[in-house]
Amino acid sequence: MEKVREIMREGRRVAKEDPRRVVHSFKVGLVLALVSSFYYYQPLYDSFGVNAMWAVMTVVVVFEFSVGATLGKGLNRVGATLFAGALGIGAHHLASMSGSTGEPILLAIFVFIQAAVSTFVRFFPRVKARYDYSLLIFILTFALISVSGFREDQVLMLTHKRVSTVIIGGLCCVLVSIFVCPVWAGQDLHLLLASNFEKLSLFLLDFGDKYCEAEENDDTKEVVDKRKRNFDNYKSVLNSKSNEESLANFAKWEPGHGQFKFRHPWKHYLAVGELIRQCAYRIHSLNSYYNSDIQVSIDIKKKLGEPLRRMSSEAGKAMKEMSNSLKKMTKPSSSNLHVQNARSAIKSLTNLLDSGILKEVEPQELISLLTAISLLIDIINLTEKILESLHELASAAKFKSKTAKSEKPNAKSIVSVQPTKYHDDHVVTIFEDDDTSKHNNRSNEVPIDEEHETKCVSCNHTSPRDVVECDNVSPK
Amino acid sequence: MEKVREIMREGRRVAKEDPRRVVHSFKVGLVLALVSSFYYYQPLYDSFGVNAMWAVMTVVVVFEFSVGATLGKGLNRVGATLFAGALGIGAHHLASMSGSTGEPILLAIFVFIQAAVSTFVRFFPRVKARYDYSLLIFILTFALISVSGFREDQVLMLTHKRVSTVIIGGLCCVLVSIFVCPVWAGQDLHLLLASNFEKLSLFLLDFGDKYCEAEENDDTKEVVDKRKRNFDNYKSVLNSKSNEESLANFAKWEPGHGQFKFRHPWKHYLAVGELIRQCAYRIHSLNSYYNSDIQVSIDIKKKLGEPLRRMSSEAGKAMKEMSNSLKKMTKPSSSNLHVQNARSAIKSLTNLLDSGILKEVEPQELISLLTAISLLIDIINLTEKILESLHELASAAKFKSKTAKSEKPNAKSIVSVQPTKYHDDHVVTIFEDDDTSKHNNRSNEVPIDEEHETKCVSCNHTSPRDVVECDNVSPK
Repeated sequence: MEKVREIMREGRRVAKEDPRRVVHSFKVGLVLALVSSFYYYQPLYDSFGVNAMWAVMTVVVVFEFSVGATLGKGLNRVGATLFAGALGIGAHHLASMSGSTGEPILLAIFVFIQAAVSTFVRFFPRVKARYDYSLLIFILTFALISVSGFREDQVLMLTHKRVSTVIIGGLCCVLVSIFVCPVWAGQDLHLLLASNFEKLSLFLLDFGDKYCEAEENDDTKEVVDKRKRNFDNYKSVLNSKSNEESLANFAKWEPGHGQFKFRHPWKHYLAVGELIRQCAYRIHSLNSYYNSDIQVSIDIKKKLGEPLRRMSSEAGKAMKEMSNSLKKMTKPSSSNLHVQNARSAIKSLTNLLDSGILKEVEPQELISLLTAISLLIDIINLTEKILESLHELASAAKFKSKTAKSEKPNAKSIVSVQPTKYHDDHVVTIFEDDDTSKHNNRSNEVPIDEEHETKCVSCNHTSPRDVVECDNVSPK
Repeated sequence: MEKVREIMREGRRVAKEDPRRVVHSFKVGLVLALVSSFYYYQPLYDSFGVNAMWAVMTVVVVFEFSVGATLGKGLNRVGATLFAGALGIGAHHLASMSGSTGEPILLAIFVFIQAAVSTFVRFFPRVKARYDYSLLIFILTFALISVSGFREDQVLMLTHKRVSTVIIGGLCCVLVSIFVCPVWAGQDLHLLLASNFEKLSLFLLDFGDKYCEAEENDDTKEVVDKRKRNFDNYKSVLNSKSNEESLANFAKWEPGHGQFKFRHPWKHYLAVGELIRQCAYRIHSLNSYYNSDIQVSIDIKKKLGEPLRRMSSEAGKAMKEMSNSLKKMTKPSSSNLHVQNARSAIKSLTNLLDSGILKEVEPQELISLLTAISLLIDIINLTEKILESLHELASAAKFKSKTAKSEKPNAKSIVSVQPTKYHDDHVVTIFEDDDTSKHNNRSNEVPIDEEHETKCVSCNHTSPRDVVECDNVSPK
């Protein structure tokens, strides 16, 4: 009983994490029930007979979660079936010329050679990435057709029926997956990248404050817990490579949809994703220093706190801006300013360091402090690289430039919500966008999107949508 | 023509990378030719008829590269076919009671519900990891049997034949994959872990020297190139998570083989693997500092060079020892000593730092230098953690303790080959094992295993065997 309840809970969690999963399950059930009507409906059964089962089989195997995966598998299957069918008929014809003793031997040899060669070709990395399923079906169809051709003399007829039922099954899957609540792998990749930006920005926006212990300690436990989760969110970025790659592979099969054209530059997404991951590695190291035993004295932290906080928060804001502009498919306009601000913060930090502030610091502390600084500098360098790479993506994908209107939608709220908490009296004019105000606000109140945030943390990376959607629920 | 030649080259490369791939291709061809003889051989055809094709299909789909994957898929397929067959017959029986109009409607509803529920369950993470294929086959078989039962009245007969041909096909695959040149996923995981240790050790053993620029510059280009490859080898460790996880999943299906018992603690491998990856992240950061623009002056490097080099090389030796003991399945005995040596090197380094050696260093240099130091310390801490986790693995897997004999097999060669190159005059008695001597030797000569090393670099992580084998070819 307890077990059943646990399964129900797990089911609810899985469904809540990504409601599209429930829809997908219904879609599969629907198409399968539809295709199996081939058996019930007399006229259809008359024309296809037992071969109708190939349609059922195709549906079960081909219908995947995203449109790209379904299309890829469907095209692979149909193409391979056609090609292998033609080859199988050829092989059967060749073998039948060699008399009744030679025929089975020759067929066995053909099957052996074909299976061995195709299996070997499946190990080629480039083939494995896109055509693995093709080859599987190729081996299968060739073996079935050339071999059953040995018995049934109407090989052509058989092949024709098999191919047409496979095409019907595949077509049903593709049409339903495209027109009934489609799940686009391309869009998922797009949102995954945006959510990865978001995760890093959440870390960086908080890091400066946390490191310098400037936060007030009267936060409620919930806020602290939520912060910790935000802080650890970046960890899922570390292992996002395989997920990104498979999504990009699927996306290549997809037709144009929404704002994505057919030949959308998915390759660029992988490049940006790789750089984000590099940055996440650094953040991971930085996090371990923050949690280490050696604590830097408050005194020195206070002295260096201002530029340190500014470096971290400006890098975070740049990330946040990139996330937003990716989501809206506009060119990242203000990120550059944030990076420049971060650079000027580095400069004031090095000036402070040059002034001999480190003379009295213990070597142990010095190591810990300077490592954090150096990792932060590294992160800022990487942020700049990511920005470049995002610009390349933006121009390859023809993102729109931001209009003046969309740049400052909440200009009023900026003024009202603690406008100068982070940046009190500094050299560089700092561009304040709406996201900053959100962040400032967040760190001082129990946010009303608590429940929504909990959801974010529990997401695995197959459903980036939830994570991305989180920031739309800002406290009002 | 050029294209064909390129494909041939790629084929040769793929085969050379892991010759077991060629063997696997032959095995698949063989089994498929064998199973398709069901069609040729009259007595077999009489008993199975067209259903013989299920055996062909099972072979094509189930036969995977490793024994574990094949066994897992085979068992999944047979189990799911049996279960779905029984349920399908039940559904057919239920539906047939509702008259000729109700039957197809009821069957369609059954198929819909079954497909929708099973598809949803496939999203459960724990199910996805181990039973995804089961559910696919479950949906397929249920639909086929309950639906074709509507037409052919001998449902029981049909199910019986389908199940028995699937079992025959699956059995052929499993037997051939176990008894003809088996590829064990468990062994591959074991070797992958050992090779990951090896890759990190290669980096660490060289790093100290390279960082302190103590190496002589009259090395030939080949040696430099080879070193660079050794140095960059660790990068494949960064993304080894998914590979390790799938190998561990397959390994759980495998029976005892070689030195691995049936319930070998594969989980512990994942834990050790995760820590190794953490260490690789740090090494990745360290590598970026080594390659950065800000260069620390030779003067200060000379002063700190000795303990720095010792820290790096001792951590590398500890890794190397762990790699060796994992390969030989013995408890890592001397790694602890290496870690202690590294710790004492940290101590002498901090003593040096405390003596005020840093007073004259520029802040920029200081940041770069101290970051490298701090990352190294972090790596040593992680090495200790990895060692603990490896000890846990060793006791869970009941590794043997090293005998006195096996501890110093090449005691003679240690004396002959520059015994005190790294460790000239130090506090701690340093345990010299054969691997150290190998390394010392390597860095001064053009090694005779040049070609073998090239092979290592080109390996991807699906075939860790080559990498691991490299160190067996030591210069004699």
